[in-house]
Amino acid sequence: MSNPSLLILPGDGIGPEVMAEVRKVIDWFGAKRDLAFDVSEDLVGGAAYDAHGTPLTDETMAKAQEVDAVLLGAVGGPKYDALDFSVKPERGLLRLRKEMDLFSNLRPAQCFDALADFSSLKRDVVAGLDIMIVRELTSGIYFGEPRGIIKEGNERVGINTQRYTESEIARVARSAFELARRRGNKVCSMEKANVMESGILWRDVVTEVHQAEYADVELSHMYADAGAMQLCRWPKQFDVIVTDNLFGDLLSDAAAMLTGSLGMLPSASLGAPMGNGRPKALYEPVHGSAPDIAGQGKANPIACVLSFAMALRYSFDQGAEADRLEAAVEKVLADGVRTADLLQAEGETPVSTSEMGDAIIAAL
Amino acid sequence: MSNPSLLILPGDGIGPEVMAEVRKVIDWFGAKRDLAFDVSEDLVGGAAYDAHGTPLTDETMAKAQEVDAVLLGAVGGPKYDALDFSVKPERGLLRLRKEMDLFSNLRPAQCFDALADFSSLKRDVVAGLDIMIVRELTSGIYFGEPRGIIKEGNERVGINTQRYTESEIARVARSAFELARRRGNKVCSMEKANVMESGILWRDVVTEVHQAEYADVELSHMYADAGAMQLCRWPKQFDVIVTDNLFGDLLSDAAAMLTGSLGMLPSASLGAPMGNGRPKALYEPVHGSAPDIAGQGKANPIACVLSFAMALRYSFDQGAEADRLEAAVEKVLADGVRTADLLQAEGETPVSTSEMGDAIIAAL
Ligand SMILES: CC(C)[C@H](C(=O)O)[C@@H](O)C(=O)O
Ligand SMILES: CC(C)[C@H](C(=O)O)[C@@H](O)C(=O)O
Repeated sequence: MSNPSLLILPGDGIGPEVMAEVRKVIDWFGAKRDLAFDVSEDLVGGAAYDAHGTPLTDETMAKAQEVDAVLLGAVGGPKYDALDFSVKPERGLLRLRKEMDLFSNLRPAQCFDALADFSSLKRDVVAGLDIMIVRELTSGIYFGEPRGIIKEGNERVGINTQRYTESEIARVARSAFELARRRGNKVCSMEKANVMESGILWRDVVTEVHQAEYADVELSHMYADAGAMQLCRWPKQFDVIVTDNLFGDLLSDAAAMLTGSLGMLPSASLGAPMGNGRPKALYEPVHGSAPDIAGQGKANPIACVLSFAMALRYSFDQGAEADRLEAAVEKVLADGVRTADLLQAEGETPVSTSEMGDAIIAAL
Repeated sequence: MSNPSLLILPGDGIGPEVMAEVRKVIDWFGAKRDLAFDVSEDLVGGAAYDAHGTPLTDETMAKAQEVDAVLLGAVGGPKYDALDFSVKPERGLLRLRKEMDLFSNLRPAQCFDALADFSSLKRDVVAGLDIMIVRELTSGIYFGEPRGIIKEGNERVGINTQRYTESEIARVARSAFELARRRGNKVCSMEKANVMESGILWRDVVTEVHQAEYADVELSHMYADAGAMQLCRWPKQFDVIVTDNLFGDLLSDAAAMLTGSLGMLPSASLGAPMGNGRPKALYEPVHGSAPDIAGQGKANPIACVLSFAMALRYSFDQGAEADRLEAAVEKVLADGVRTADLLQAEGETPVSTSEMGDAIIAAL
């Protein structure tokens, strides 16, 4: 049987640096755990635009459809700010999400014990925090039509459309309920059903799926503004949160920041099962391309390494190996190894991106 | 000259209780500071639905258009959850905002010194915090057409439309720049211009208004997800934030919660100047109707009292009297007077809603 295939898209900014460390980790699993991958690499985002005039070529898109999983670094940067909307780096990422139909975006907001003091929140509010935000990723206002800037009389008008079908809501709800069953068995669904009809449909469909298929899971509903508040007040009240594309964007970023472990957080974007039973999948860190520190060996590769751990768990059914990798990261942190973003006191010396990668390999 | 007129709409839940304390404060200003108001009272939200089958009658709507300012308590409650969307309590509030054209919603996120430990954030992150979120309130996805739940094939589809015209963006931007000039002279505008065309137009128009009329104010732009993060990380980096209706809903609630002073925060919703030079205006606390504690004398009336202080400042040009009222509230807090929501240690005894009102009168 041939090895499972991975497509690596390092992207822009710190993407290539952090991905270089992930390659070390992938190689380690091939050499020591008999888990070899066929790895190929390609361009996305600004890097693809620079080379080909588009943030994602059709060839790369086709490759992404064929592999068992895609690992992405980060896209974007000020260099591309003036580009037309249609060729901005972000469009490459959005095209991947849409054409691979990666409807379920798993964003864990976890607080690493060794970093709890790093949060702007009080230690007892975040220590031990472990919630999972499931964000719908291929529909809603990110993709709805009509959209654009039109002229009406002598005014410009900006238009976007929030649009959710019943089946789009149902499938992401299922994925949240499935996850909850393997965790704390609680789902909180967030929308603005008091203001938006699409929120009413969201609430109705989540409720129907719950009653028909997941009545054993505890379900609650919250308006998204109250949800933002509650995440800031007492995030431990949540287990799994399921929400739409736009609310998920804001809420998962806020939750990630609250943990104090932002440079540490991975994400998985999953679609329907392929012929081999594996879901279509793309893994990427929650952090951005951090152009201000790119190329300086300062970036923290942990979020990207943990994204590979999620790949082991969700694409390759290697939960035990994912645990092993996560434990190695926890050990390195407990040992006090810190990239520049994790320094807390004057006088601490940071390790470089590649030293952090080496420390993780050593801990493995 | 006749007295300025106030329409009081206590609404639902704790609305009537907290408003009763505001009446005491209004009476005090009439008796002691020669600032008498013609006060009338009417129904809104669930209370109006119960009496008239609609969350806002045309008569009340007409009155709101005529008075110098509206003071609103809160709307909504579980009792009305099953009502049809078109008559839900929230529709009364949304109709007031829309028909009075209250496009600029001022939401201060302030941390009261005496309450800094109340925040889930560390003291140094929030102590002294004083930012102002200016939320566009009469357009965007709250009001855009088409909207609704339609049937397509055998699926339901939920649709809402985000729609912003150039002039809608320009007028709320102006109001943010004006405010900034009287504060820290900094505006940060938030949208998702990397994903939404309406966000691109938002960014462009804010930039144009800035260059043409407010080049002396410092302007920055942030994606709304990054904005949510930065609010959680280091809110003091902001002075005035300007954003759209939906982002403003989430971001202002998160910011309010971060201060730890949620039960304390007022808001002003302002429209264009009327014939007498005063803007159309509605003032309301940021908190909701809190049905769980309604009618028990436990509610904290301070947010509603401070909403009246905002009315003094923004509708009646009585900045010094607003300062006086705010100082009275600060004194009461510094003296340790606490409603139930503000208790921190076991064994502290809370005062009732009306005792808090009396304490504020005494401090005045
Ligand atoms: C880069 C951008 C298009 C993207 C989004 O808005 O989804 C990012 O913020 C994210 O959350 O993955
Ligand atoms: C009650 C509701 C309609 C309202 C809103 O979403 O605007 C509330 O959350 C607010 O922020 O004033």
